[in-house]
Amino acid sequence: MKSTEPADISQLCIHTITTKPWSIEEAAKNFSASGVKGITVWRDAIERKNIKQTGRMLHEHDLTIVSLCRGGFFPGSNVIKRKSAIDDNRKAIDEAVELGTSMLVLVCGAEPSQSLEDSRKQIRDGIAEIIPHASAAGVRLAIEPLHPMYADTRSAINTITQANDLAEELNSPWVGVAVDVYHLWWDPFLENEIMRCGRNGNLMAFHICDWKVPTTDMLLDRGLMGEGCIPVNKIRSWVKNAGFNGFNEVEIFSTTYWKESQAVFLKKIIEAYKEHS
Amino acid sequence: MKSTEPADISQLCIHTITTKPWSIEEAAKNFSASGVKGITVWRDAIERKNIKQTGRMLHEHDLTIVSLCRGGFFPGSNVIKRKSAIDDNRKAIDEAVELGTSMLVLVCGAEPSQSLEDSRKQIRDGIAEIIPHASAAGVRLAIEPLHPMYADTRSAINTITQANDLAEELNSPWVGVAVDVYHLWWDPFLENEIMRCGRNGNLMAFHICDWKVPTTDMLLDRGLMGEGCIPVNKIRSWVKNAGFNGFNEVEIFSTTYWKESQAVFLKKIIEAYKEHS
Repeated sequence: MKSTEPADISQLCIHTITTKPWSIEEAAKNFSASGVKGITVWRDAIERKNIKQTGRMLHEHDLTIVSLCRGGFFPGSNVIKRKSAIDDNRKAIDEAVELGTSMLVLVCGAEPSQSLEDSRKQIRDGIAEIIPHASAAGVRLAIEPLHPMYADTRSAINTITQANDLAEELNSPWVGVAVDVYHLWWDPFLENEIMRCGRNGNLMAFHICDWKVPTTDMLLDRGLMGEGCIPVNKIRSWVKNAGFNGFNEVEIFSTTYWKESQAVFLKKIIEAYKEHS
Repeated sequence: MKSTEPADISQLCIHTITTKPWSIEEAAKNFSASGVKGITVWRDAIERKNIKQTGRMLHEHDLTIVSLCRGGFFPGSNVIKRKSAIDDNRKAIDEAVELGTSMLVLVCGAEPSQSLEDSRKQIRDGIAEIIPHASAAGVRLAIEPLHPMYADTRSAINTITQANDLAEELNSPWVGVAVDVYHLWWDPFLENEIMRCGRNGNLMAFHICDWKVPTTDMLLDRGLMGEGCIPVNKIRSWVKNAGFNGFNEVEIFSTTYWKESQAVFLKKIIEAYKEHS
């Protein structure tokens, strides 16, 4: 048998939602024991917890807290809803600070009772309104364009082109873009737009998983890297060429994997990561 | 009560698959009795039938046969598969002629084991190869861009921009674009690209339905116009402004509606059409 160097996992980050059945304490312990160095925390994982203590616990496990997921959801059919979204985003920024991370991912939202144009304006206005708070807190806001199949209720920002346009229009060092292969892999302009994103200093985060063939659920059937048809390695090389050298964040929502032993799933994640990132 | 003129349904076309439980004879009889003037025929509806006779039957019901659905599926991982796709497209063109329609809709296909770039090249080459046959037969080929959620196996052509690019590159009077609101509604460039499509003489067909909120199935949960979040009227006005004055084709795949009485469903289609087209 040929002996090979173990593939480098120093840039592997895993989202808490990926191993959803685990508490954040279990996730921290198991990630750390497996040599994982980064964690992105979903807000449901810190609900009803002392956030500062949780952040300390993660750091004690030698985990970099890559980002907090997620703010956003700016559109609303009336001013009260939109004001409440702004308040919640300020709260999320504060939570990011307490936790000890300097990035908040934005899933921008969409309101199906109004036009996408209106939702897009409200997203732009909403982000503009929270920039001062983000700047004062030292928290970067990463706009995550979502797959067009989520344009009804989750995000009116559906391509990296739109996210780039928005980040450039807002023109703040506190605003950038999160690239997720699941949402963007199909886009014929993806390579060019990743380059543009990097060139303008807006490439803040990189999320990976795979698109299963067939995909049986629009939300909860993501695959491990290598399990589907997304060229994760190729997109990773574009992101790298665009100057990004941060964590590769594994973000998988999967009722299939959530039913498995999470310890076994974690091993699979690391194996898939070594092979496909 | 105010009396109003009944809304005009002279440009209403319905796809046979929309009322899938009906045979094509039942569809023809019921469409015709309700004043519907156009029908688009899916190939499953004419399987094992005498196609010429079926076409005559449709014409006897005073129905315009707007198009035959569908050719396409050009990509393949080997030359035998790709050759077989070309043969099948030639056959579909012949079927269109026998049936008595001058348009074949192309769902272009995608092969998940290869890159989207490769699938896109094979689509271009495949269409180029069948143009002489289409031209000789007098059958126009309408490239239908499909929603990005179908980029794995159904189509590597996922935006109207791509379809426009492809139609312009092929530069044949026999090649154009079919605009379906379900696939394209989310696109921020949609209005501009519809104008471009019309300006270049490529706007060949217009398909309507709605995106239900929530959508529970990626394929078989389409809604009636007005039932979801697609601005069908607005997109219709763009298509009209781009010079299109053909049929508005109702294409709905829905296990929900297929379970209902198709006579009741047909009434609902006509009501929804009057209100939202």
